[in-house]
This record gives sequence, C-alpha cells and structure tokens, in this order.
Amino acid sequence: MQTRPFTDRDKRYMKRALERARAVKGTTFPNPAVGAIVVRGGRLVGEGATRPPGKEHAEIVALSAAGSRTVGATLYVTLEPCSHFGRTPPCCRAIAESGVAEVIVAAKDPNPRVNGRGIRYLRGRGIKVSVGLLREEAVALNEDYAWSAVSGRAWVTLKLATTLDGRIADKASRSKWITSQSSRAVVHDLRRRHAAVVIGAGTLRLDNPRLSVRHVMGRSPARIVFASDPEEGYGSRLRRGAKSTRTVFVCPGGKAGTITKADDDVELWRTGSLRTPANLKLFLEMAHREGMTSLLVEGGQKLASSFLAHRLVNRICWFYGGILLGGGLNAIEMGSKALSLRKAVRLTDLAVERMADDIMVSGVPVWS
Amino acid sequence: MQTRPFTDRDKRYMKRALERARAVKGTTFPNPAVGAIVVRGGRLVGEGATRPPGKEHAEIVALSAAGSRTVGATLYVTLEPCSHFGRTPPCCRAIAESGVAEVIVAAKDPNPRVNGRGIRYLRGRGIKVSVGLLREEAVALNEDYAWSAVSGRAWVTLKLATTLDGRIADKASRSKWITSQSSRAVVHDLRRRHAAVVIGAGTLRLDNPRLSVRHVMGRSPARIVFASDPEEGYGSRLRRGAKSTRTVFVCPGGKAGTITKADDDVELWRTGSLRTPANLKLFLEMAHREGMTSLLVEGGQKLASSFLAHRLVNRICWFYGGILLGGGLNAIEMGSKALSLRKAVRLTDLAVERMADDIMVSGVPVWS
Repeated sequence: MQTRPFTDRDKRYMKRALERARAVKGTTFPNPAVGAIVVRGGRLVGEGATRPPGKEHAEIVALSAAGSRTVGATLYVTLEPCSHFGRTPPCCRAIAESGVAEVIVAAKDPNPRVNGRGIRYLRGRGIKVSVGLLREEAVALNEDYAWSAVSGRAWVTLKLATTLDGRIADKASRSKWITSQSSRAVVHDLRRRHAAVVIGAGTLRLDNPRLSVRHVMGRSPARIVFASDPEEGYGSRLRRGAKSTRTVFVCPGGKAGTITKADDDVELWRTGSLRTPANLKLFLEMAHREGMTSLLVEGGQKLASSFLAHRLVNRICWFYGGILLGGGLNAIEMGSKALSLRKAVRLTDLAVERMADDIMVSGVPVWS
Repeated sequence: MQTRPFTDRDKRYMKRALERARAVKGTTFPNPAVGAIVVRGGRLVGEGATRPPGKEHAEIVALSAAGSRTVGATLYVTLEPCSHFGRTPPCCRAIAESGVAEVIVAAKDPNPRVNGRGIRYLRGRGIKVSVGLLREEAVALNEDYAWSAVSGRAWVTLKLATTLDGRIADKASRSKWITSQSSRAVVHDLRRRHAAVVIGAGTLRLDNPRLSVRHVMGRSPARIVFASDPEEGYGSRLRRGAKSTRTVFVCPGGKAGTITKADDDVELWRTGSLRTPANLKLFLEMAHREGMTSLLVEGGQKLASSFLAHRLVNRICWFYGGILLGGGLNAIEMGSKALSLRKAVRLTDLAVERMADDIMVSGVPVWS
C-alpha cells in the first residue's frame, strides 16, 4: 500500500511520533497509544499523542497545535486514523478538513471498525497516503490493543519472578525478595503499560499488596483478584483503595457475566467456577468489554499455571533473580496438563535483558 | 609489585600471549594453560603455549623459537614462570640462562610451590620483572588450576540445561532436546576446556552418551560416572570407549581412596557411600591427585543437587532452552537441604549470553 519511498527525514519524524505514543502508553485504554506529528516546509509545526479516553486522539491534538499551518502539510501518525464515531468524532474527517496534503501511517489499524477504512477515506478525499514506515515498532507498541480489538478478549501478559531454578517462594512460602531493586523498576513500568494487574487470592493473603505503580512515573492500573469468596481480603490495603483505583474481584456465584458492587466499592465479576477454560475466557471478554484492553497476570502459581494451561497467555515476561533455592514452590505447575517435550510451549520473539542482579526473558508463547 | 607503567604495545603483546594460552586450554592438565611471547627491538621473535603434560611449558617453547634473539629481549608470559622441578626443569632457570632482560607477567601463580618464588628468582638474577598486565583475564583463564592447586581438590563447573521453568526432563523422563543446536556447540566447547565430564548412573542409563567433544575442535575429556554398582552400564558406548578415553566409575565398596581397574579398562574409584559430603570431597581430592584439575558436572538431578547441597560447586553454567513444560523433573531438588530465601545460593560474577534459541547464565555461587 506504500505509495512513495520513505526518506531518512520521514523516518526521523515517525520516530518522534512513536516516542510521543510510547510516553502515553497505559493512559489511553481502551484506545491505542498513538503519536502524531505535523510537518510543513521541512518544519515541525504540531505534535501530539492520544489523550485519556473520551478526549482527543493524537491526530486532533497535533492538528490543533499546528493551527492554520496544516494546509499543505504532511501528517505523520503511528496508527491508521479512525473513520468511525466512537466517543469522539472520526479523526479522518478532521484530517480531511484541515487541508493536510499527505498522511504517512506507520501501521494499519486491525480493529474491524477501521481496518483500512481510514486510509480509503483519506485517499477518497485526494490526500496522498503512504503506509508502513517503522511498522514493526508501531505494531509492537499496540500489540495488546490489536489483539483485543480483533479477538474481543483482553490481552494477557504473564509476569513471573523466580529464582534461577524456577521457584517463586522458598519452602516456608517466603517470596520476598527473589528479584532485586533493579528489576522492580522494570516491573512497575510493565504495570504502568497495562490496564489492570491480576493476582490470585493466595497472593492477596500472603503479600497484602498495593499493586500500585511506584519507582516510575505513571498511573496505577486497575487491580483484579481471583477469589472464590467475594468477601476475601475485606479490609486489606487493596480493597481499601477501591474508592480511588478500580478494583475487581472475580468470583463464582451469581449469573455468569454479571457485575455487582460490594459495599467497599469493589466490583464483583461473576464468571462461574474458574476451573474451566470457558470461564477464564468469559473473564477476558468481560475485561475487554469493560475497557481493559490488557492485563498483567502477576501470579501466584495457580493463576499463572491456569492461564498457561488454557493457552490464554499472549506474552511472557520472566524475571530471574540470580539465586538458587533447590526447593520450594515452582512458578508453573500444570499437574495433569503438564506438557511433553514434543508439545512444549515455545517462546518466540525471545528477548533477553540484563538488569544489575536479575535477568528478564520475554517472548510470545506458541503451542504446538 | 609492578615496576614500570605498561604501554599499549605491552598490552598488545600480552593479549596475543593470552590468545595463545586460550587456544591450548583443555590440553595441558594438570598444568595451567599459559602463553608466552618474546620481543626484541620492537619485533616479535618467538611465541609459544604450554604443550601437553610432560612436555615443554610455554616459556620454553617461546624461547626456543626465538633462538639467539633472546639476549636483551622482553618476555611476556601470562602466568608467573615456575621455579621448581616438576616433570620438566624449572622455567625460571631457562629464562635466566637465555639472556632475557625483562619479564612481564600477567598473574602470579598461586600454586604454593611457586607463589612468588619464580618472580623472586628472576629478580635475584638481575632480570627486570613487572607483574599485573591484564591480570583479570589471565586469572579467569586458569581459575580451575588456581583453585585446584590451592585447595588440593578438583574445580567443579556445574552445567545445567533446562526449560525456562527449570525442568531437565518432561513427565515421561524425556530430555531430548531441551536446548537447541546453537547451545550444543557452547556445551562442547565447555567440555573441551575441562579435564573430565561427570554424570550419574541415571544419565548413563537413559541417554547412553559418548560425552565426547563434537561440534568444536579439541580433545575429548575423561568421563566419570557416579554409580553404586561398578558393573553399571557394562557394554555401553561409554564403557566401550574406555580403552581410548580415560573412563572412571566412582563407586562405594573397597578401601576408600583406592583405585582398581575393571576388565574393560574402566577405573574404579572407591569413595565410600556418596551420601555424605566427606566422600564427595574425597572424590574431588582423588581427581586432583589424578591430574584432573577441573570437572564438568553435567547432571542429572541427584548429582547436581548433591554437589550443590554440599557447596562443592565453583561455577554454574545454566543453559535455558526457550520452552516451558509446566511439570516434569526439576533440575535441582535438594530435599531437606533446600534453602530458605535468606540463605539462598547467590550467583556472583553473573554473565548472560544469548544463543539463537537458548540463553546461558553463568556465575560463581556464593553461600551465605
């Protein structure tokens, strides 16, 4: 679909647009994080990124900043502009009305409500449109959004923090600290980029966590707890924070798919028993419907193993502390669902990052 | 002890001497792998590396190559020259007699039979001696030799190859292949650099391995099997190779510390029951006495866990294949000796290397 070769100058502008997009990642759910740059006569005249949900998209912010200098200008945007009315009017119309002469798009929007319609709309209005500049980076940035828009389910990142021998706790169930301060900042950055953090009731009981974003700038994600009892952890730090940060307990009982509220403002999502994959899938559909495009599943063993056994993990981020226990609790224990070597889960797109004392391995799981 | 500042030219020559030393690593046991360079009037006039045991040390090879051009020359050597009669006469005497004017040494030899005596001998003969150029690299290259010479026990590298969740076999005990071809070459290079490879009887039974060096150039190390029965694996590939490659079975029975021979040329080392640390230590002393400076312990679970539980591991090389099983055999299972988080084994000197599909993590274990 590319209509002209891209220059180094094009690349620089798109890189800048991507930087703008990355900076707002985590604040735009359920919308994708997008960046836009307006250039006229070789000068940057406006730029912007997606504002919080219900407010302007990136293109509108950048066009507004450029004011009257949009006429004849080139717009660089990291994702195909939307062509439909959501909570805001379609960006395509505003672009066409702005007098922009050319639009360069990093990646097509796979959302079935867009999926090429934005590009066709602009071309239909005589605007030159080129697609594919720094596509890979743009796709990676919104992999959660794209998955969620296409599948109708929330994206799942499984985060594990283990010893080198794969343990998440020692034989006395102690888990503090397996990884070091250096990787904690990376974990908090991971939280910032997800719509919600998910834990099991065991982790709530043992750690009494806040699951907030610290060590880095950014908003705190919603908190989701899998609990068989809707009263679980009543009075805990997490539940007490429900008035200021969205807090969900996923529990059986009630009509499957319904949401009620506990008296401490905790939302109770009824999904039926969590033993079956159907109910985990229902949960992911509910999260998507509730605007939580991406979830960071932080464990413990049961929750992590269950998402993995049912093949509901989109990406794994595995933090290894540089220590060994020789016993204790394994991170993943799938019981009768444990795989044979021939059917092992394989991590593709494998990346390895070294922190001071820890190692992060991440990849996209593929089942054979 | 350094007597003059080192120049960039000095550094280049010592780097070259280190390269020569690295190339012979694994062929010189129980001697260290050493490289030497002779330079006169700004020209390299001779170089050499340690020859197989019983033959010339590096200094002698380099001095012979230089012939009469040693007079007034500078000798670069990666380890302090020996001052004692072993299977060969002391190098120090040959150096003094060669007319060399200056000797630059990367690292002192910590062997109690040398340990500064070589340097003092040379200085006593009016030769200028400087010590410490590229010391770290030189020490790393012969860490096994230094440990063994000082402790009287063989150095132990523990090599593990697991899934990301720390499994060495699936629930049906299958272990082929957990890591990929890309790390197999690194493993064979590791074998090449050790005097012997050590496995348990279970691994012998399951894998019927050759434990030879393939995929890379180099000699095959000796093979050592821990077996409760001296007849274990009779007729296996490994035992059949005993006539050409030294093969040892470590077993209980007989007088502790004695060595006999089976009729297929396999050596039987009697160490008593292997349950106790004292007998593992006896084994390491026997290996040292038998000229096996360094051992590569390749598993399985029992052997690896036993060396670790008894704190007899000097370095860990952990290969992770990019797969997950969710069950199966853990690499390390120390049972009642499993550690609490407060007393976890910590890997210092942590290094991470990425192969195509695998990851290698290595470090020096430290117990608290």
